[in-house]
Amino acid sequence: MEFETGDKIKIKKNGVEYQGVAMPKSGKCVVLKLESGYNIGVNPEGTNIEIIQKKEYSPLKVKPENKQADSKLPEVSIISTGGTIASKIDYRTGAVSAQFSADDILESIPELQKMARFKGRVVYNVLSENMKPEYWPELAGAVIEEIENGADGIIIAHGTDTMMYTAAALSFMINTPVPIVLVGSQRSADRPSSDNVMNVICAAKVATSDIAEVCVVMHDSISDDRCGIYRGTRVRKMHTSRRDAFWPINSDPIGFVDYSTKDIEIISDYATRDSSKLVSETNIDPRCGLIKFVPGAKPDILSYYTRKNYRGIVIEGTGLGHVSTEWVPEIEKATKAGIAVVITSQCLYGRVCDRVYDTGRDLIKAGAIEGKDMLPEVALVKLMWALGQSSDMDTVLELMETNIAGEFSLRSLH
Amino acid sequence: MEFETGDKIKIKKNGVEYQGVAMPKSGKCVVLKLESGYNIGVNPEGTNIEIIQKKEYSPLKVKPENKQADSKLPEVSIISTGGTIASKIDYRTGAVSAQFSADDILESIPELQKMARFKGRVVYNVLSENMKPEYWPELAGAVIEEIENGADGIIIAHGTDTMMYTAAALSFMINTPVPIVLVGSQRSADRPSSDNVMNVICAAKVATSDIAEVCVVMHDSISDDRCGIYRGTRVRKMHTSRRDAFWPINSDPIGFVDYSTKDIEIISDYATRDSSKLVSETNIDPRCGLIKFVPGAKPDILSYYTRKNYRGIVIEGTGLGHVSTEWVPEIEKATKAGIAVVITSQCLYGRVCDRVYDTGRDLIKAGAIEGKDMLPEVALVKLMWALGQSSDMDTVLELMETNIAGEFSLRSLH
Repeated sequence: MEFETGDKIKIKKNGVEYQGVAMPKSGKCVVLKLESGYNIGVNPEGTNIEIIQKKEYSPLKVKPENKQADSKLPEVSIISTGGTIASKIDYRTGAVSAQFSADDILESIPELQKMARFKGRVVYNVLSENMKPEYWPELAGAVIEEIENGADGIIIAHGTDTMMYTAAALSFMINTPVPIVLVGSQRSADRPSSDNVMNVICAAKVATSDIAEVCVVMHDSISDDRCGIYRGTRVRKMHTSRRDAFWPINSDPIGFVDYSTKDIEIISDYATRDSSKLVSETNIDPRCGLIKFVPGAKPDILSYYTRKNYRGIVIEGTGLGHVSTEWVPEIEKATKAGIAVVITSQCLYGRVCDRVYDTGRDLIKAGAIEGKDMLPEVALVKLMWALGQSSDMDTVLELMETNIAGEFSLRSLH
Repeated sequence: MEFETGDKIKIKKNGVEYQGVAMPKSGKCVVLKLESGYNIGVNPEGTNIEIIQKKEYSPLKVKPENKQADSKLPEVSIISTGGTIASKIDYRTGAVSAQFSADDILESIPELQKMARFKGRVVYNVLSENMKPEYWPELAGAVIEEIENGADGIIIAHGTDTMMYTAAALSFMINTPVPIVLVGSQRSADRPSSDNVMNVICAAKVATSDIAEVCVVMHDSISDDRCGIYRGTRVRKMHTSRRDAFWPINSDPIGFVDYSTKDIEIISDYATRDSSKLVSETNIDPRCGLIKFVPGAKPDILSYYTRKNYRGIVIEGTGLGHVSTEWVPEIEKATKAGIAVVITSQCLYGRVCDRVYDTGRDLIKAGAIEGKDMLPEVALVKLMWALGQSSDMDTVLELMETNIAGEFSLRSLH
C-alpha cells in the first residue's frame, strides 16, 4: 500500500499493531510518530500497512496565496539551526545527525498549521555543540529580519546542548516586541523516542501569545502534561537525557503551557507584546573564556588567556565565588592588563557574594566583578556582548552591573 | 556579671531580651548561640547580662580518665580542617576567617558529649577554597591513624566550598570499617546565622551509626528538621548560601537523620560497620585538569595542559558529553601522548553517552573515556587517584571503568 509522509497509517507486524503519522523513511524502515509523541521505526518487510487518513495539510512554504488563505491566523517564522529536533537517526551508523528542515517539522506535526501561518527559514544546520558565538549575530539578524517583515512570533529550532547559550545571546542582543521562542527535543539515549511534538506545539502557543520575551519552551516534567516557559537568561540544561532537562535557575519560569488545553498559566512578570520597539545590538566580542576553578588548579591557566589576547574571563569559583588565595595576584594582573574578570559560582544556584570571606574581599580588591546570581554560562555570553558594545572598560563594567534581560535579581530568591 | 564561654546567659538591650549559650567573644561583642542555632553578636555596653545556667560540660580533651568515665560511649575523632564551621567573624574586617578548633565546636555544643567520647585533632586550618589535592593524602592518613587507634567513627569539619572534592578523594582512598562523616556549615551572607549545631549533632549521630561509608551530612531542607546523609561521591554544593546547599546527584541519599528524634532513616544500600577491613590507597597524581567546554572555546586550550605535562584531563562537555567537532583532533593528540581524557557533562544530572551522536562517536574513536553518570568534579578526583595508583595507562583506564566507591551506576536513574 502506497502512503505519503504525513499520512496516518496502521502497520501490523508479528501480531502487533502500530498506528501513527508516517514520518520520512529512515533507510528501509517506516518511521511512525505515535500519539504519545514517540517515534518508532518498523521494517516494512512482512507487514501489512493500511492508510487510515490521508494527510490533511501539505507543508506550508512561503507562498502568498497561502498567507491569504489563513489571514486570520498570526504569522510565525520557524528558524531552523539544526539539533535533535531537526535530526533523524542515521541507520547506517546508528547515530543521530542533523538533517531535517522547518518544513519537515510542519509536515510531521499537522496540528501546528491550525495555530498559525508558518514560514520556514534554515539559518544553520549544525548539531548545537558546534554553535559558535560568531553565529549568534547572524541568527539574531535573521530573527530581526523576520520580525521586520511582519512575523508575529519567532520559533527557533535549536539543539538542546547549547540552547541556553544562544537563548542568553539573543536575550542581550534583541529588545523584542514579539515572542522569540527557542525549542528543541531531548532524545533518550537508549530508545528512539522523541518529545518534539509537544515541545513544538507548546512553543507555537507561546510564539502566538502576549509574551514578548526571548524564552525556552521545553517539557516541565517527564509527564507529557505541560511545558515550562523559561526566561532566556535563567534556564539551564540540567540533565543529559530526560525530557524535562531544562530547569529555571534562580528564577521562576515565566509560566507554563498546558498541553491538553493549550492554556498558558503565567506565574512571573513578563514584557507584553508590542510594549517595546524592536531594538537590537548584535555586536559581540567572542574573545572571552570560562574557567572553572577546582582544587589544585594552577593560577597559571589565566596566563594562557592573557597571552592569547582574550578580553574577558568568567571564573566559576566555589561557593560564594572563591578561588584559592594564590589566584588573586594572577587575577589582579589580568584586570590591570585590561581584561574583564567576572566571578560566578559553580554552585549554579544562589548569589555570589565576595564580601563575606577574606578570599572574596581580596578578589574585589584585585578588580574582579561579582557576577551576582547570574549563571556562569550567562555571565560569559553577557561579557562577550558587553565587550562587543564598547571597548571602554568603564562602559563594559557598567553594562555588567546593569540588568539587561532579567539575567540577575537584586537579591537572591529563597 | 562575669560569665564563661559555654554558660547559658540572658542579655537585655534596648528592651529586647536575648537568651542562649555564650560563645567565644568576637572583638568586644558577646556572641550568643540562640536555641534556633543562629548566632547573634551583641555589644555589651549598656546591657544587663544574667547567667541562667553555668556550663555543664567542659571541653573534652584526650585525657585517659575522661575516656574511663564515659567508657560505654563510642569514641569519635573530630578532625578539623578549617572552614566556616570552624570559623568566626573577624570584626576587624567584617569578614569570616578560619579560627576555631574541634575543642571550640565541643564547647559550644554541649549536647555532643552525651553522644560519644570525642577526641579533637587539627590537621589543617584553611578555608576550603585553599584545600589542595596534595592535602588529601595527609588528611586520609590522619583518618586512618584515628581508626587504627580505635576510633569508632570520624567527623571531619570541613569548609563547604570544596567539601565534595575532599569527600570524593577520601571515598576513593579509604575502604573503611567505620563511618567517616564530613560536615560543615553554610552561613548566610547577610546575617550572622549558623547551621552548625544541627549539622554537627546529626554528623555525630551518623559517626556512631552502622553506616561505614565516607559521607557528607548536611541540612536536607531549609527547615531545621533533618539532615541528609549523602554518599561522598554523589553529592554537590548546589547553592551558594542556603542551609540545604548539598544535593545528592544521580543517586538517592543513604538516608536522613531526624534532628528532633535523632533517628536515622535509611533509604539506600550502604556498607555496614566492620563489614570490610581498613584498606587504604592514598597515592594521587594531582597533575590533572578540568576543562568546561563552552561555545567558542578554542581546542588550543588542551595544548596548555599537554605542554605543562598534565597526565589527565576531565572535559565537561555539553549534553550527553559533547564538544565541538574541531576539538576531536586535539583530544586525539592528547590521548596519543598518553594523557587520560575523561568526558563528563556540564548538565551534572544524567549519564554521558557518546554513542548517540556523531560528535560523541568521534570522541570515543579519539580515545576519550566516557565518564558515565559521574559528576565532573568526582571524575577529576578519581582520575587523580587512578593516576596515583599506576603509571600504566591500561590500569588507569580499568580503574576508571570500575565502580570504586559508588561514583557511578550501571544505568542512569530516572
